[in-house]
Amino acid sequence: MKFAKRVAGTQNAGLNDLYTAPDPQQISFAGGYPDPAMFPQKALQVAMGEAMTNRAAFQYADSWGFRPLRDQLAAMMAADGIKTSGEHLIITQGAQQGIDLTARLMLNPGDGLVVEAPTYLGALAAFNQYEPTYYEAPMQADGMDLVALKKILMTHQVKMIYTVPDFQNPTGAVMSLEKRRALVRLANQFDVLILEDGPYRFLRYEGTTLPPVKVFDTEGRVVFLGSMSKILSPSLRLGWLIADPEIMAGIEALKGAADVESSALIQRAVSQYLSRVDFPAHLAQLRKTYRQKRDVMLDALHCHLPADFTITDPQGGFFLWLQGPKGLDMTALQREVLLPAHVSVVAGRNLSPAHSMVSGARLTFAAPAIGDIEPGVQRLAAALSQGARQVQAR
Amino acid sequence: MKFAKRVAGTQNAGLNDLYTAPDPQQISFAGGYPDPAMFPQKALQVAMGEAMTNRAAFQYADSWGFRPLRDQLAAMMAADGIKTSGEHLIITQGAQQGIDLTARLMLNPGDGLVVEAPTYLGALAAFNQYEPTYYEAPMQADGMDLVALKKILMTHQVKMIYTVPDFQNPTGAVMSLEKRRALVRLANQFDVLILEDGPYRFLRYEGTTLPPVKVFDTEGRVVFLGSMSKILSPSLRLGWLIADPEIMAGIEALKGAADVESSALIQRAVSQYLSRVDFPAHLAQLRKTYRQKRDVMLDALHCHLPADFTITDPQGGFFLWLQGPKGLDMTALQREVLLPAHVSVVAGRNLSPAHSMVSGARLTFAAPAIGDIEPGVQRLAAALSQGARQVQAR
Repeated sequence: MKFAKRVAGTQNAGLNDLYTAPDPQQISFAGGYPDPAMFPQKALQVAMGEAMTNRAAFQYADSWGFRPLRDQLAAMMAADGIKTSGEHLIITQGAQQGIDLTARLMLNPGDGLVVEAPTYLGALAAFNQYEPTYYEAPMQADGMDLVALKKILMTHQVKMIYTVPDFQNPTGAVMSLEKRRALVRLANQFDVLILEDGPYRFLRYEGTTLPPVKVFDTEGRVVFLGSMSKILSPSLRLGWLIADPEIMAGIEALKGAADVESSALIQRAVSQYLSRVDFPAHLAQLRKTYRQKRDVMLDALHCHLPADFTITDPQGGFFLWLQGPKGLDMTALQREVLLPAHVSVVAGRNLSPAHSMVSGARLTFAAPAIGDIEPGVQRLAAALSQGARQVQAR
Repeated sequence: MKFAKRVAGTQNAGLNDLYTAPDPQQISFAGGYPDPAMFPQKALQVAMGEAMTNRAAFQYADSWGFRPLRDQLAAMMAADGIKTSGEHLIITQGAQQGIDLTARLMLNPGDGLVVEAPTYLGALAAFNQYEPTYYEAPMQADGMDLVALKKILMTHQVKMIYTVPDFQNPTGAVMSLEKRRALVRLANQFDVLILEDGPYRFLRYEGTTLPPVKVFDTEGRVVFLGSMSKILSPSLRLGWLIADPEIMAGIEALKGAADVESSALIQRAVSQYLSRVDFPAHLAQLRKTYRQKRDVMLDALHCHLPADFTITDPQGGFFLWLQGPKGLDMTALQREVLLPAHVSVVAGRNLSPAHSMVSGARLTFAAPAIGDIEPGVQRLAAALSQGARQVQAR
């Protein structure tokens, strides 16, 4: 039996790179895990307990999701600038399913798809299944390179642009206000859908929050994805997708075909949670904790990194980008030097479809315990120095 | 913006037929909902409470699923005849996601896919996204017509066969032992994958349980799907897929790309539940309740149905098939006569890819309250008589 053509690309996406072999001594800067100390365990227990008193929570519901929760999330997004209502918001299995369903809605094999380079590994894994023709728009300090994007749009048929405008995965960069407006103008001009992935939006540690790209959408061509994974708990598998009616009708049909619906039980529990707690205060607490961790990480990196490595300076989110000297193969370095030194990152190789980012890596400051960050960075810096010498010696 | 080609088929799959307009007076024989009185609410509350004491339940885990639960489900399936272990079992979002992922693994556009006629609506909705070339093997009292199947296999390239061998959705039929063996022989001979969907396996109300088709698999070409939706609670969205290693590796990659993983929280709760309760006793209770409902329904139908309608005689599961006279359009009848009479079924039109079953309908006895079944059947029978006269009068 031969598998479908789409499978090869998905199996090779490198998702397993996120899970390095178990090593109790390892300090990992790899997986984009939230700090487990920040899960509001007690409040979620109470909310779940309350949800479970209702027998309807155990039955089938519908593919759209639990309407009170959709209304709550829509209100949260409205406060964030997106004029929407629960009617235009559908619940997904994390933002990952939103990526999958939007790609499924839009992409025939060979259709043009622009991604940032580097970009989120899991998005590429989802996109690969739809066999797009990829184009890379390089990341800059203020977001996607729109000059490069325009060149792509003028010379190729493009169906969709995928962007993480806020605290981008993996660079931590924020797309500037001017670029947000210009991105929508380009999408309008070239009749392209923008998939805006916003799991880190509520995690800004300094500076001014910019409106979502969706706010500038004049023609219903921006799909916004949100998620509770980074700001509440990933095991809730609770994301949301905001889109205009025609797109939404398509997404809802695809959602039903994919897994019927998301868990009504989880949705009711999250709805209970949101109505019982001061969620903005919870977010403020997250920001405080992650800001401290980021500061420790940046200080340590600035102090210890070899001179030929640079890092980005994220104002929020979970990640920063470590850029090594030209010619460095971070994947080999990880295997040969970092892992034996009990430290890990996500090597850049699989973070762009053309494998153009081989000498960089994604580092997270969110997951490791705060006391592990400086020792981990010291190990990392020592290993990088050693590895760079080995690489040069070849 | 134009949607991908695959979307049209999915939007037209008729999944929404399962959800008729809200009508508080309606007695519905349509949706395949379990009886809400049978949800073990208290035991699930306790299990969830226990799961939530562990902080790891809130974090990312992995795409395979919670290993203790995989082992528990594998043991349950081993007791049912499938020699397997947790290693060869992956957790899915209900069996629906198992259907989606297996189709995604196997089907290029145009690939041959055999389905039973009639078959499960949701499976067609999932399959449509992969744009297969459908072939219909008619259902018989002892399962899929294998003479018809062999003819299809001899004259067309077929990649996959989808079957619900136990208490088939929508006919309630059980595939005979001889046919189970012969089906695997044919699959071996023609190099085809068998997708065995078994959500009703544990709901036999009389007669002898037959082994799953997977038991006769000699070449690793049968994928088995199980689900907690009908035997515990649909809102857990907890299904499982059993396959051999090569297929499993592909499924796991696709699962990661589709939604990263299923909820570790839910999985830990179900694992707790299974280790705390006497699950076979729970299943016995379900069988007792549903058997009573089935008996009431069959008695009422035999008593009230017009002479030109026939029904199947299910030994388990949730459904039976109502066959009307040739030329009857059950979809029109539902719209014009049944819904105004406050009773509903699932009309046969969308239950086969060629829309070949227009004069039949799926009825469930699982969802309605036992006291509603006879009055509902009376309404249905009266409406059918009236409708058949109207149809003849045209």
